[in-house]
Amino acid sequence: MIRPRRKARGPTVSVLRIGHRPGRDPRLTTHLALAARAWGAERMFLNPPDAELASRIDAVSREWGGSFRVEPASDWRAVVREHAGGVAHLTMYGEPLDRLLPKLAAAPRLLLVVGGAKVPAELYRRADWNIAVGSEPHSEVAAVAVLMDRLRGIPKRGARPGARRVILPQPRGKRVLVRRAGRP
Amino acid sequence: MIRPRRKARGPTVSVLRIGHRPGRDPRLTTHLALAARAWGAERMFLNPPDAELASRIDAVSREWGGSFRVEPASDWRAVVREHAGGVAHLTMYGEPLDRLLPKLAAAPRLLLVVGGAKVPAELYRRADWNIAVGSEPHSEVAAVAVLMDRLRGIPKRGARPGARRVILPQPRGKRVLVRRAGRP
Repeated sequence: MIRPRRKARGPTVSVLRIGHRPGRDPRLTTHLALAARAWGAERMFLNPPDAELASRIDAVSREWGGSFRVEPASDWRAVVREHAGGVAHLTMYGEPLDRLLPKLAAAPRLLLVVGGAKVPAELYRRADWNIAVGSEPHSEVAAVAVLMDRLRGIPKRGARPGARRVILPQPRGKRVLVRRAGRP
Repeated sequence: MIRPRRKARGPTVSVLRIGHRPGRDPRLTTHLALAARAWGAERMFLNPPDAELASRIDAVSREWGGSFRVEPASDWRAVVREHAGGVAHLTMYGEPLDRLLPKLAAAPRLLLVVGGAKVPAELYRRADWNIAVGSEPHSEVAAVAVLMDRLRGIPKRGARPGARRVILPQPRGKRVLVRRAGRP
C-alpha cells in the first residue's frame, strides 16, 4: 500500500523556458522539465515549442503520475503578460535568492522564467524580480531546482495521482512498484 | 572594493561523473561541472575523460576565480577506491536525502557520484550511501545542486581568489566588475 502524496507547501509554480533550441539541446531542456516536474511545478511553457520534447515528458507523467505538462509558447511575452501572479526571472546578474525568498514564498502563484544563451533585455524589465541563484555561471536546471527546493522543499514521497510506477527507497539496489492498469 | 569570499560550511566535496558521452552530451556535463563549481565543489572527475570540456571549464575558473577543475578519470573504480572519505551515489532508487543528510553533513570529505543513462550495478555496492534526491526521474544537475545546497548553502557572494570577473547584484540589468591583470 503506497500512501498518496501529500500536498506541498509554498506557491503554485509554472516555469517558462525561453530560447530553447530544438535539435540542439533536447537533453538540457528535458532535464529542466523533469526537474520542474519533480519539485512540483504545474507546467513548463516552452519557447519556441518542441512537440517531440513535450510528448516525451507526457510519457513520463503517464508513467510516474501527476498532471505536469510541457505547453507550447510561441509568444513568450503573452505568457508573461497573462500570468496571474509574480514573475521571477532567474539570472546570475539579479538580486540574491536569500534576499528575495520571503517575497517569493508569500506569492500564491509564481512564474519562473529561464533563458538560454541569449536572454532578451526586455525580460529584465518585464519580470517582477530578477533573481540570482548564486552570482556565477552555472545551469538553469540547477537554478530552478534549488529555488523550488528552497520554496517548497523536496517532493514528498508517495504515489502521485495516476502513477503507474512508484519507487520504494532502498539502501542498495532498485525496487519499483508497477501497478496494473485499472487498479487504484 | 569587493569582499573576498568567506569559507562555506560543511564537508569538502568532489563530484565523479560516470558514463559521460563526449560529443553527445557536452552541454549537460558542462552544466553539471558548473553547478558543482558554483556550489563550492573542489573538482569533478570525468569518466570517460573529455579534454575539450575540461579546458572550457578551466576557462571559466580563470575568469571567475577559484581552483575548480575537471580531472580525467579513465578508471572510475580507482577514483572511488582512493577517495579518503564518504562516497555518496545519487540515484532515484536510493534512500531519501532527508534521512541521510545528517550523516553526509558530518563527513569531512564527500565524493558525490552521478551516472549517465546506464549506471554499473556495482556502484550501488561500492557507495557508502545510495541517495535519492526525490524518488522520481529528473536530472543529475538538479540532484547535485540541491544536495550541495542543503549541505553547504548557497555560495557566498564576493570574489573568489584570482577572479577577473565579479557580478554586482542588481534588481534590473547587468553589472560586472572586471579587474585588470595584476590588480588584487
